[in-house]
Amino acid sequence: MERIEHHASLGGRQEVWQHASTTLGCPMRFGVYLPPAALRGERCPVLYWLSGLTCTEQNFITKAGVQQHAAQHGLIVIAPDTSPRDPDGTLGVANDPAYDLGQGAGFYLDATQSPWAAHFRMESYVVQELPALVETHFPATAQRSLSGHSMGGHGALTLAMRHPGRYASVSAFSPIVAPSQVPWGQKAFAAYLGEDRSAWAAHDAVALIAHAAERLPLLVDQGEADDFLATQLRPELLQAACAAAGHPLTLRLHPGYDHSYYFIASFIGEHVAWHAQALRARLL
Amino acid sequence: MERIEHHASLGGRQEVWQHASTTLGCPMRFGVYLPPAALRGERCPVLYWLSGLTCTEQNFITKAGVQQHAAQHGLIVIAPDTSPRDPDGTLGVANDPAYDLGQGAGFYLDATQSPWAAHFRMESYVVQELPALVETHFPATAQRSLSGHSMGGHGALTLAMRHPGRYASVSAFSPIVAPSQVPWGQKAFAAYLGEDRSAWAAHDAVALIAHAAERLPLLVDQGEADDFLATQLRPELLQAACAAAGHPLTLRLHPGYDHSYYFIASFIGEHVAWHAQALRARLL
Repeated sequence: MERIEHHASLGGRQEVWQHASTTLGCPMRFGVYLPPAALRGERCPVLYWLSGLTCTEQNFITKAGVQQHAAQHGLIVIAPDTSPRDPDGTLGVANDPAYDLGQGAGFYLDATQSPWAAHFRMESYVVQELPALVETHFPATAQRSLSGHSMGGHGALTLAMRHPGRYASVSAFSPIVAPSQVPWGQKAFAAYLGEDRSAWAAHDAVALIAHAAERLPLLVDQGEADDFLATQLRPELLQAACAAAGHPLTLRLHPGYDHSYYFIASFIGEHVAWHAQALRARLL
Repeated sequence: MERIEHHASLGGRQEVWQHASTTLGCPMRFGVYLPPAALRGERCPVLYWLSGLTCTEQNFITKAGVQQHAAQHGLIVIAPDTSPRDPDGTLGVANDPAYDLGQGAGFYLDATQSPWAAHFRMESYVVQELPALVETHFPATAQRSLSGHSMGGHGALTLAMRHPGRYASVSAFSPIVAPSQVPWGQKAFAAYLGEDRSAWAAHDAVALIAHAAERLPLLVDQGEADDFLATQLRPELLQAACAAAGHPLTLRLHPGYDHSYYFIASFIGEHVAWHAQALRARLL
């Protein structure tokens, strides 16, 4: 583990670390915000943030303005990269020239298909390896919450439902809610999980809702001026699935807001407050 | 004038505009944040932000988190690019391969030397052309304040002092306060203003303080872990000049903070509040 950036920020410290991931078989970077409470030596609960297509660990930590809210509520914020990486092309990590497949587009699942299965194991990385690392190296409790944007919103919703009891709370901005039914998800799932659609439902939030073992309330914010709303995101499918299953959902549609980090920065404070409340109520 | 970006943001709207600058002889871009009050039709005072070396109009609007504070205080925020530009190399705008001269390094002055004098006229652009444009095309009053970072902190301090009565308030983050005495400033001033140093003092905050026609209070924030502190920034020179001249200065040194936007984001709220108070007190 090597610390490659550190910046004082809102009384705490924003850092970027790099480590050799055994799960992914490549070096990985993640952002860590340590709030003032953590710098004073207190152990703090952790909010994991999953970013969207094309992002690295940098986008959220530089553009969302999360630090002021994490400082206020005493949360550590962990923001991993969005896929395995192989910048020098020496590690055999598969890639694709498209922005929505391969490096930068890990979709927060463990791929089963060649050439992806060897390295594209973002579910195991985010759910197992990364928290184990965080809870060892930083003053973090084992209280965890999960949020994300777009592809990362899909990751947050599906990982929370696939691992009941592991997260105190979950939220999403502009999530892909039904990857099996939209082009981004269909392309990625066909590549990573194969053409047999029976394997897809286990990674599809709308499909998972019906059988969720835990009725963890969902907070979802969606901009109505989002260019991807009707083709890729389709929050009405999540709304219908939650209604049918009796799953608690707070879906907020915001007129005028788009898919950008300006949208995230506008509502991240409310998400952090939502997670902080759930984390504080969570027994260790 | 063409609007090339618009995003809902904190109840207001972050836009980017491009126009043909007659002062600079090239297309120029600037960010405009319109607070909720402006969208409701109220005329709002304007905070101008001047960015540092290598920046465009994008850095401040994406990384500083200024929108929430501008929304709260009802300020329009204008963030211009840092120099004339010539991306296709067809306009004859001079450039230099170094990051600290030429395009991206306008130093907020009107150059007098060849090959810079034809286009590098950022003082006239920021003080005259841009406000005239802003006050015509947006719901802006003629109440103006000025802030900036690093090279842009130099710009804020010098332009406020060179144009007494024009700005209600001025502040700076990590400013170059004595360009005549530090490498960044000496290189730029020799190129833009010539080797005769007698022309430099008129664009040097520390030199201007002694003769300032208006005792506009200065608010300056500086990180103590800033890599450029001892070589390029030297706030102690500003402190001494203000003390000698009886010029009001609030200089805050922040342990641990560096030169990055994480520093700006940590204190931008206090700067916006400072400017809002001065702007509200300003008669039109």
